[in-house]
Amino acid sequence: MKEVIEYIESNSERYISELKEFLRIPSISTDTEKAAEMQEAAEFVSSQLTLAGMSAVDIFSTNGHPIVWGERIEDPDLPTVLVYGHYDVQPVDPVELWEFNPFEPTIREGQIYARGATDDKGQMMIHFKSAEAFIERNGRLPVNLKFLIEGEEEIGSVHLEDFIRGHVDLLKTDAVLISDTAFFARGVPSICYGLRGLAYMEITVTGPKGDLHSGSFGGPVANPAFVLSQIVAPMKDEDERVTIPRFYDDVVSLTQRESDEWAALPFDEEEYKAELGVGALSGEAGYTPLEQLWARPTLEVNGLVSGFTGEGAKTVLPSTAMAKISMRLVPNQDFKKIEKLFEDYVKSVAPPSVQVEIKRMHGGKPWVASLDHPVLVTAAKAIEAGFGKRPVFQREGGSIPIVATFTELLEAPCLLMGIGLPDENAHAPNERLDLDNFFGGIRSSAFFLDQFSAATHS
Amino acid sequence: MKEVIEYIESNSERYISELKEFLRIPSISTDTEKAAEMQEAAEFVSSQLTLAGMSAVDIFSTNGHPIVWGERIEDPDLPTVLVYGHYDVQPVDPVELWEFNPFEPTIREGQIYARGATDDKGQMMIHFKSAEAFIERNGRLPVNLKFLIEGEEEIGSVHLEDFIRGHVDLLKTDAVLISDTAFFARGVPSICYGLRGLAYMEITVTGPKGDLHSGSFGGPVANPAFVLSQIVAPMKDEDERVTIPRFYDDVVSLTQRESDEWAALPFDEEEYKAELGVGALSGEAGYTPLEQLWARPTLEVNGLVSGFTGEGAKTVLPSTAMAKISMRLVPNQDFKKIEKLFEDYVKSVAPPSVQVEIKRMHGGKPWVASLDHPVLVTAAKAIEAGFGKRPVFQREGGSIPIVATFTELLEAPCLLMGIGLPDENAHAPNERLDLDNFFGGIRSSAFFLDQFSAATHS
Repeated sequence: MKEVIEYIESNSERYISELKEFLRIPSISTDTEKAAEMQEAAEFVSSQLTLAGMSAVDIFSTNGHPIVWGERIEDPDLPTVLVYGHYDVQPVDPVELWEFNPFEPTIREGQIYARGATDDKGQMMIHFKSAEAFIERNGRLPVNLKFLIEGEEEIGSVHLEDFIRGHVDLLKTDAVLISDTAFFARGVPSICYGLRGLAYMEITVTGPKGDLHSGSFGGPVANPAFVLSQIVAPMKDEDERVTIPRFYDDVVSLTQRESDEWAALPFDEEEYKAELGVGALSGEAGYTPLEQLWARPTLEVNGLVSGFTGEGAKTVLPSTAMAKISMRLVPNQDFKKIEKLFEDYVKSVAPPSVQVEIKRMHGGKPWVASLDHPVLVTAAKAIEAGFGKRPVFQREGGSIPIVATFTELLEAPCLLMGIGLPDENAHAPNERLDLDNFFGGIRSSAFFLDQFSAATHS
Repeated sequence: MKEVIEYIESNSERYISELKEFLRIPSISTDTEKAAEMQEAAEFVSSQLTLAGMSAVDIFSTNGHPIVWGERIEDPDLPTVLVYGHYDVQPVDPVELWEFNPFEPTIREGQIYARGATDDKGQMMIHFKSAEAFIERNGRLPVNLKFLIEGEEEIGSVHLEDFIRGHVDLLKTDAVLISDTAFFARGVPSICYGLRGLAYMEITVTGPKGDLHSGSFGGPVANPAFVLSQIVAPMKDEDERVTIPRFYDDVVSLTQRESDEWAALPFDEEEYKAELGVGALSGEAGYTPLEQLWARPTLEVNGLVSGFTGEGAKTVLPSTAMAKISMRLVPNQDFKKIEKLFEDYVKSVAPPSVQVEIKRMHGGKPWVASLDHPVLVTAAKAIEAGFGKRPVFQREGGSIPIVATFTELLEAPCLLMGIGLPDENAHAPNERLDLDNFFGGIRSSAFFLDQFSAATHS
């Protein structure tokens, strides 16, 4: 390993210059005029995978942007690691808020500024460069390595699931390694081991068959917008607990170890409130903000619309009112079961004066890895070796649908080993990546490949 | 009076042909390309007023469409009646739903079909023709008569209030007579003696300073759309009574006479539900639908908007949520007091995790005339004489702002003596007017002028 780490060090300038080359390509997947740039980025990835010693490299076309594939099978007896990443980036609007040209990478105070620096070109590249170091120093990798790099993550990975379903054997692996998340905070390396699931519903309340004059009909005719508010409002009680019967039945309690770990994290409530511009926090009584975000389900109104919403005062008694409501779920809640409980609840409270339609819009499973899983234990050691600091174990409040897809279709554990920082402006102007973390990430990746091989063989 | 009534009878064909002439003018006030037609309609009114024996007739220009004025002062000792009406009409879209050309009046089964037939050209004209009959038969009117006919009623009477304020002496009167409402039902002549008032509010709830990802922030951060639903939903209880403290303090109870009158009206709940397409009625417990509409205040959500309202599922925790809420008020509720009670309530329930802004959008006074008022008593007798049937006394659930303006600025009682029918499609395709009601209206108008003179002199 010593030579590998030394190689990384002595090639750091070239690594940065290659990262810059990658970041110069405006591979904005949502921009239909950027097809050539998307192809250019896919080819850049392909050349990097060749440089990283992959014995087979291929660019698969899809009905959208191409998927880049690379693999090197050292020995069928060795464990296999599949690295997932994406070469597409977000648009750059509002471009006037950027301090530098988003596609002319600029280094300032140890940060490299460019669209895609942290999401996900820079983060993904740490695994290209750790593999390259092994190949250059040892002529071989400690594991079998596969790369699956898509170009549509920022537009919903529209063709990825089909590709995975069609290539399950090719993708067969013992672990999926993804670097597309952030540290808990600067100087606090993290492993993300849990994500919340989702049950996203839409309720439409219909009253009279057309909009009515609220003066001529207000009173005897039920008001769908008001009825909707009366259906929605009691869904959480004064403790901000969801009141839908049996909603919490399958919720796995937080372990003492998790509570303790999270309580030790540097979370500053005052800073958090100031950053969001809120005067007070809310959330389920009896839980800390991090527990509320990571280990407790919640219910959110994502959208509301009814009647007249323009300027001024129009006296309409609306015919319909719509709410989009999503519930974030935690292990072991089942989104199909929750959807049914939600529907049952809404039907049970809807008055006979209106009709209520309930649609299931989107469902996703929650995900959590055991803190004792060998992959996580190994990753923790690797990160400690790479960054000189034991990582914290955190979860995310959101969902990363691809994690559930990998877990389900490949039956392999996922490891979210992100090296971004929370304030690196992914999706916003002045996106950047800390270069110390970039190199810490390359070292950690190398240590992980090495130790995963040893751990799995021991 | 016998000769007057006979004159009306013997001139009925000419009256219809003049009504047709009026209806042929496409005086759509909202259509900026119809300025010439608006002028033509004003001139038609002016010629009718001359024909009706007005000694002074004038067309006042405004910054919008002209106001037509006419008066005949018989004798300063006689009482004065001011007739208000409007010569502008609604647009005709969707024109493909009309059975006849909206500006080529067509008579079918005793109804005259055309835009403006019932709203308000035909209704207003009954007073032109009763005056003409008096002049032609008796050479004089039994009262002093004034006409104030505007061309902007369908676009909010934008210049009328200023005109009234500027001409209070010219408009001085003992009663304001308006025919721009409908019978309770076919064959049920009606006098409208009450209107509800209005307090129209807008609430904006603001949480975080920008939209957030509902996964990454859902839990500790209050959701403005959900908070809004929790502010709005408790505003009415399970009996559909408004819960805002002191809301009902000034509400005048329905009298036994009103209850009895309304209970006798031919209101068919099943038909009403079927027409509106609702499975059940709602409304304040302990009151009939007509009582809820006419004599009880209510609270309506007129509009709601927050977050993502398009197709699909976007996981946004919205920064803001807005509701438009209006309360219909009844005598003696004061809209300014109600606005304050509403604001106090909202402030008292808003949690510290959000900011709440409350705006007063529009206020209007409720209006009710005493059933014992000599103008109403006289009008009832006149309608009975004109239609052969005692009228019912009804109220309206909506507001007619001009009634409050007249009452306030001219300090004169208003009489809403409409002769339309509820299904005559004012504002909709195939607008029409029942010709029996047209002639019943002319006779009633004549009897009213005669009996008002007698009653006021007795």
